[in-house]
Amino acid sequence: MSVSEKKVSRRELIKDAGKFVGGAAVGAGILKLGSRSVAGKAAEEPPEWPWSYKKLDPQAVAERGYEAYFNNLHCSGGSFEAIVGELREQVGYPYTLIPSKMMDYGAGGQAGWGTICGALNGSSAAINLVTEDYMALSSELIGWYTETAIPAYKPSEPKKAEIETTSVSGSALCHVSVTKWCDASGFGSESPERSERCARLVAQVSAHAAELLNQHAAGEFEATWAAPTVVGECLDCHGPDESQANVFGKMDCLKCHEPH
Amino acid sequence: MSVSEKKVSRRELIKDAGKFVGGAAVGAGILKLGSRSVAGKAAEEPPEWPWSYKKLDPQAVAERGYEAYFNNLHCSGGSFEAIVGELREQVGYPYTLIPSKMMDYGAGGQAGWGTICGALNGSSAAINLVTEDYMALSSELIGWYTETAIPAYKPSEPKKAEIETTSVSGSALCHVSVTKWCDASGFGSESPERSERCARLVAQVSAHAAELLNQHAAGEFEATWAAPTVVGECLDCHGPDESQANVFGKMDCLKCHEPH
Repeated sequence: MSVSEKKVSRRELIKDAGKFVGGAAVGAGILKLGSRSVAGKAAEEPPEWPWSYKKLDPQAVAERGYEAYFNNLHCSGGSFEAIVGELREQVGYPYTLIPSKMMDYGAGGQAGWGTICGALNGSSAAINLVTEDYMALSSELIGWYTETAIPAYKPSEPKKAEIETTSVSGSALCHVSVTKWCDASGFGSESPERSERCARLVAQVSAHAAELLNQHAAGEFEATWAAPTVVGECLDCHGPDESQANVFGKMDCLKCHEPH
Repeated sequence: MSVSEKKVSRRELIKDAGKFVGGAAVGAGILKLGSRSVAGKAAEEPPEWPWSYKKLDPQAVAERGYEAYFNNLHCSGGSFEAIVGELREQVGYPYTLIPSKMMDYGAGGQAGWGTICGALNGSSAAINLVTEDYMALSSELIGWYTETAIPAYKPSEPKKAEIETTSVSGSALCHVSVTKWCDASGFGSESPERSERCARLVAQVSAHAAELLNQHAAGEFEATWAAPTVVGECLDCHGPDESQANVFGKMDCLKCHEPH
């Protein structure tokens, strides 16, 4: 076969490939062989953010989150995987593009620092991937978390321990949430029971995030959480445009500060 | 040209394409034409986590973070973009796959709740994408943050305001960090000066994250941060395996709790 014949064949294949794969983007990718790869070009163009959401089954999300916690993804990566993994299974691409492990740094309130609960971190990243209203939904999720008895999720087969105790954190912080549960249950922060509790927490928080996303997708989301009265009272001086004007946040001030 | 000649050409092209694009995955993608698309197949298989890192210029990271803050990515999305955007420019695929906007929920300490500083959140997600040692690097970044005068970064052209004041947060929390700076500078939490301060903070934190990643890539990373003595003293009772055994975290306890 001559070189020119081979060139004609290559063009024809590109044309055929375009038919099979729906495309201009892939056709362009193949045409660029030698400058950039087919894979590179195709993959360079995931859908624009936000990615399209499909209503999820909160129970399936909860179960996936519980499993993911024990599958080396812990609280933050596990919560992200609970939602994005379900979307990967139900929708496929583009939810195949992001490794859920990327969110594991949120474990233990971020690298063990005890700040934001990892389940709130991972769930919120998943929320942020699929809707422009991520600030409202994430804030609602956090507010709900601070006032809810956790963990309510019951696995069909507990992986680490049988536990019954629930507690209400009153805070978005891992450190406070864990300590509240340890005090209520009598189990230590490094116990298998606390680990079981956090896995169930991941299931419950992720499922509630999916419920909020489902409501939003149906045009039925309404924020219901309201900051504790004390926050408003403190912000009368410390809030934006007030005399002190030096505080950002929605956490209950009196959890850490004395009133004055 | 006969059909058989065309088939031979097709195989040769696949072989050639394999050389250009490094491979098996793309070859397999093209061979599966008709069942799934090339674009779909290629995009379904981004490299396994962690993604390969290329040493970055911290100054370029800082500048990109500063710009991103004002380009609708704020603190958390901006810090993620500072690092991942540089990798997108320097490496390309697969850093083209994740929309940095996904990390914007971290703004204002996560949806305005004032918990973990968004720059620590976004930078840590980027760290987690490129190395298995994300817990050590993220923890070191947070520890450094709590003890460092911020913001030290000076943009060539300030976008919002001229500011000079720096402060040391003593905390990983947005709310504490912002208030410390507001108290030191006299500017309000909603002022353009505070916004300028947080943009510069994003630049500085992202650049330090890149420095840690560069050290790690060179086999030279060593954690240098040590928890304040008070943390150890409190954990003598409250830490793992101790009498109370109910506390997770590395934050300075006395920022919120009275000693007892």
